[in-house]
Amino acid sequence: MEIRYPNGKVFKPTKNESKLKNYQYGNRGMTLEEDLNESNEYYLANKIAVIHKKPTPIQIVKVDYPQRSKAVIKEAYFKTPSTTDYNGVYKGKYIDFEAKETKSKTSIPLQNFHHHQIEHIRQVIACNGISFVIIRFSTTEEVFLLEGRFLLQFWERMENGGRKSIAKDELVQYGHQIPLGIHPRIDYLKVIDQIYD
Amino acid sequence: MEIRYPNGKVFKPTKNESKLKNYQYGNRGMTLEEDLNESNEYYLANKIAVIHKKPTPIQIVKVDYPQRSKAVIKEAYFKTPSTTDYNGVYKGKYIDFEAKETKSKTSIPLQNFHHHQIEHIRQVIACNGISFVIIRFSTTEEVFLLEGRFLLQFWERMENGGRKSIAKDELVQYGHQIPLGIHPRIDYLKVIDQIYD
Repeated sequence: MEIRYPNGKVFKPTKNESKLKNYQYGNRGMTLEEDLNESNEYYLANKIAVIHKKPTPIQIVKVDYPQRSKAVIKEAYFKTPSTTDYNGVYKGKYIDFEAKETKSKTSIPLQNFHHHQIEHIRQVIACNGISFVIIRFSTTEEVFLLEGRFLLQFWERMENGGRKSIAKDELVQYGHQIPLGIHPRIDYLKVIDQIYD
Repeated sequence: MEIRYPNGKVFKPTKNESKLKNYQYGNRGMTLEEDLNESNEYYLANKIAVIHKKPTPIQIVKVDYPQRSKAVIKEAYFKTPSTTDYNGVYKGKYIDFEAKETKSKTSIPLQNFHHHQIEHIRQVIACNGISFVIIRFSTTEEVFLLEGRFLLQFWERMENGGRKSIAKDELVQYGHQIPLGIHPRIDYLKVIDQIYD
């Protein structure tokens, strides 16, 4: 889409503005994250599960101590997460998942996952943890849960030269659509009950 | 201890230097943290458990995007952790713990724990997670594991007007001393096996 100044001149973002745009684009998962946080708060308040989003890992370089004030971080950098974003406990079991949103209507690109996260999912499964991903198609607001073991299979297919995404049809076949509600908004533990009970 | 300049004048730390000192003092758990990280790496490499220290929660206020460089955080603040520092999976079970070091030879002050962390421990236990704390007496290098349910009892004793610390004798009685080794340095899962098997 072309954006114009009031005088009709076409707006061209500078490098910095492009980056800012990319940054905001990177936050497109905000709504999914908010819905999951609300769901986790519901689980917590009702003593159903204790599941939190992990803090973003930050490399701190410089900290100042201004007078009469607490520590201020003056230089720091985002680090690539080495694990998935969410984990916690449900009925004594370890729960571990990653949440991704896509604007695509037909598939979820596998580049949404980092290699480290795939390795982490492999490790969690090896220790009998409950591993999955939650995927939202933002245009249709459909949300799917896909077990980690299937994500690993689709990842291997890509590494063997196959397609670089998971088709929505495949999510329908191998995953579980999560019905959306009010409280909690995304009741993913209901799906976990269906799979494991 | 008095510190003197080469000219004999007594060194008095400025406010900022005092705070820096406090900050470093706050890092006195470094060695325990390093030992636990090494132990967790051992568990991970040997497919025994997947247990990580959570990133420190940071409130980001200002981010810059210098040209041809990645995002730089220019203003951020440390947030009080609302959970414990370590969690993960062992034999499918959820593992959750906090690690504290003390210079005291006789007790661990309960002020080492935040109210939020106590609440989190209560929630984890209610969901049948395995909850504990690891306490090191840095002068003797003795390390104890105390189950979360006992920590809650000592916390309640304090809230009811009792002592504000856990005596080392009580750790001996209610907790488990963890033998120190080479790989892993602190084999706390061995104690968990003893408790739960």
